[in-house]
Amino acid sequence: MAIETIRWKNSRVELIDQRLLPGRLHYIACKSAKDMWNAIRHLKVRGAPAIGIAGAYGVYLGIRNSRAVRFSSFKKDLDKTVSYLASARPTARNLFWALERVEELVDNNRDKSVEHLKKMILKEAHAILDEDNRICRNIGKNGAKLIKKGAKVLTHCNAGGLATGGHGTAVSVIIAAREKVSRVYADETRPVLQGARLTVWELMEEEMPTTLICDNMAASLMSKGGVDAIVVGADRIAANGDTANKIGTYNLAVLAQYHQIPFYVAAPYSTFDLSISDGSGIAIEERTSEEVKRIGGACITVQEVDVWNPAFDVTPAELITAIITERGIIKKPDKSKIKKVMGK
Amino acid sequence: MAIETIRWKNSRVELIDQRLLPGRLHYIACKSAKDMWNAIRHLKVRGAPAIGIAGAYGVYLGIRNSRAVRFSSFKKDLDKTVSYLASARPTARNLFWALERVEELVDNNRDKSVEHLKKMILKEAHAILDEDNRICRNIGKNGAKLIKKGAKVLTHCNAGGLATGGHGTAVSVIIAAREKVSRVYADETRPVLQGARLTVWELMEEEMPTTLICDNMAASLMSKGGVDAIVVGADRIAANGDTANKIGTYNLAVLAQYHQIPFYVAAPYSTFDLSISDGSGIAIEERTSEEVKRIGGACITVQEVDVWNPAFDVTPAELITAIITERGIIKKPDKSKIKKVMGK
Repeated sequence: MAIETIRWKNSRVELIDQRLLPGRLHYIACKSAKDMWNAIRHLKVRGAPAIGIAGAYGVYLGIRNSRAVRFSSFKKDLDKTVSYLASARPTARNLFWALERVEELVDNNRDKSVEHLKKMILKEAHAILDEDNRICRNIGKNGAKLIKKGAKVLTHCNAGGLATGGHGTAVSVIIAAREKVSRVYADETRPVLQGARLTVWELMEEEMPTTLICDNMAASLMSKGGVDAIVVGADRIAANGDTANKIGTYNLAVLAQYHQIPFYVAAPYSTFDLSISDGSGIAIEERTSEEVKRIGGACITVQEVDVWNPAFDVTPAELITAIITERGIIKKPDKSKIKKVMGK
Repeated sequence: MAIETIRWKNSRVELIDQRLLPGRLHYIACKSAKDMWNAIRHLKVRGAPAIGIAGAYGVYLGIRNSRAVRFSSFKKDLDKTVSYLASARPTARNLFWALERVEELVDNNRDKSVEHLKKMILKEAHAILDEDNRICRNIGKNGAKLIKKGAKVLTHCNAGGLATGGHGTAVSVIIAAREKVSRVYADETRPVLQGARLTVWELMEEEMPTTLICDNMAASLMSKGGVDAIVVGADRIAANGDTANKIGTYNLAVLAQYHQIPFYVAAPYSTFDLSISDGSGIAIEERTSEEVKRIGGACITVQEVDVWNPAFDVTPAELITAIITERGIIKKPDKSKIKKVMGK
């Protein structure tokens, strides 16, 4: 049974406030687009697929009280809400994908009444959530084939149930392969510690044998033969397979190549962005220095120091052994293979 | 003017309690070998050269009240103190080097009275501290030649004045090259955050343009051309040049090779251990899981999770562009070059 990271209840969206985990499992209620923007921006909800779902529900929250009667004025309200929500996180492809999907739905149904359109948007958000559950299961099933018996698997950040509607992407692979996995190593993933806080919590809820390491220990672990495979998620994948994911992912990919360890990216189709030819075109969000300087409220350095805090990095396709999707595995990903499987 | 990390005052050793930096600059007094063992063990004093100095003073503190009259019983007290202090940290070569140096001094002066030997030991500790000041200056001078104009330099952990008696090893190179260095990047260095707490503090005291990053951001920074040279310290260097240093150093060395960035190790001769043929023979201290699980008292993960917490890793010599010592630079270090410069 997957964690209910995001759910629709009593005419509002309920989200696990992931900033409080693992200390406290607490749901917050989002009643407006503004509530949702804040939840996305401030990492109460995070993980590319979960942000996509949240974004779709956010559109509904934003337009459900629209007083528009005619399509044109409703469309204006919709566009405003969509732009607003899109500004919450610039890198996660799935947010844009979900927002575009809702917009397309509305554009294709301009003959319907505003009230009908509102209902359709909510239904679409539900559908995105349901689909995500299925997608996660299929990613897990497909990826599990790549995991060898007795494997020690390393993952980074949180690409688990908390990042999705279902069992996650990278974590779904690990859980689907649970009989073959002898140990999971979770990078703590500074600065926001999603690995230490969220992935460890999920893996232990699933009773997986889990070891936490600091990000800078991965190389040493690999050199000792402690890692047989690396599985990570993705926030955006360019047309050539270059992959943006949580900062530190590229680091692992370079280490994996040096130690000849397979490096897998697990992500749904909605993470691909064919409009971007390669990684150089992916916008990387830079976040506040306070995220690095403060841990649990305490300042860990000189308050006045400059900080560079990119939330993501880009792993070039040539360092990726395979991309695991809900429809199958793309080995040695490149432009033509991705184009083919995306059917475009 | 270097920081007085360790000093002899009022018949006791005074040490900056480095666990309190940068929030508070506070000296603690060590009056016994036990005080010193605790200071070394619990990282109040850290950094290989500083631990060496502390160890030598620790021997004096341990034997100054010895009631022995004959050499043989004094030697027994000495051996006991030395073994005790050696158990505080297993990896730092300089601790053993300093302890061996004091033992050798005593062995070579067995005709002297116990009171005379006690004075000689204190004098030797002073000499080790003074020498370290000179060594740091010379490492800086030698290493500065390798830094190019406008260079952006990355360092890891703290190999600064706080780690030594003088201006540090890696940081001494950066400071000696200050006219050429356009920016210093300091890895925060999880889990104990020596980079964020100590190196940033030192560099800002020296008015160097400093940027703090998380350890997992270094790869991304390198890929953007943000790093022209990496300079780190060392805790122990084997006969073939394999180098043990703070966990995360090996990670940087692999990244440096991939991005074709020079990777320099700055260390005094006392860091070399010719009795160990290569890195596989270097004992790596594993520290408590609480160091990873708690930051500033707060638990950042599930309390029950397993943790792997090695304090050091080993960088193979082939990833090291040069070792910078007080006597000169060893380019592409290997067994024969090291043997030659060590005069053995």
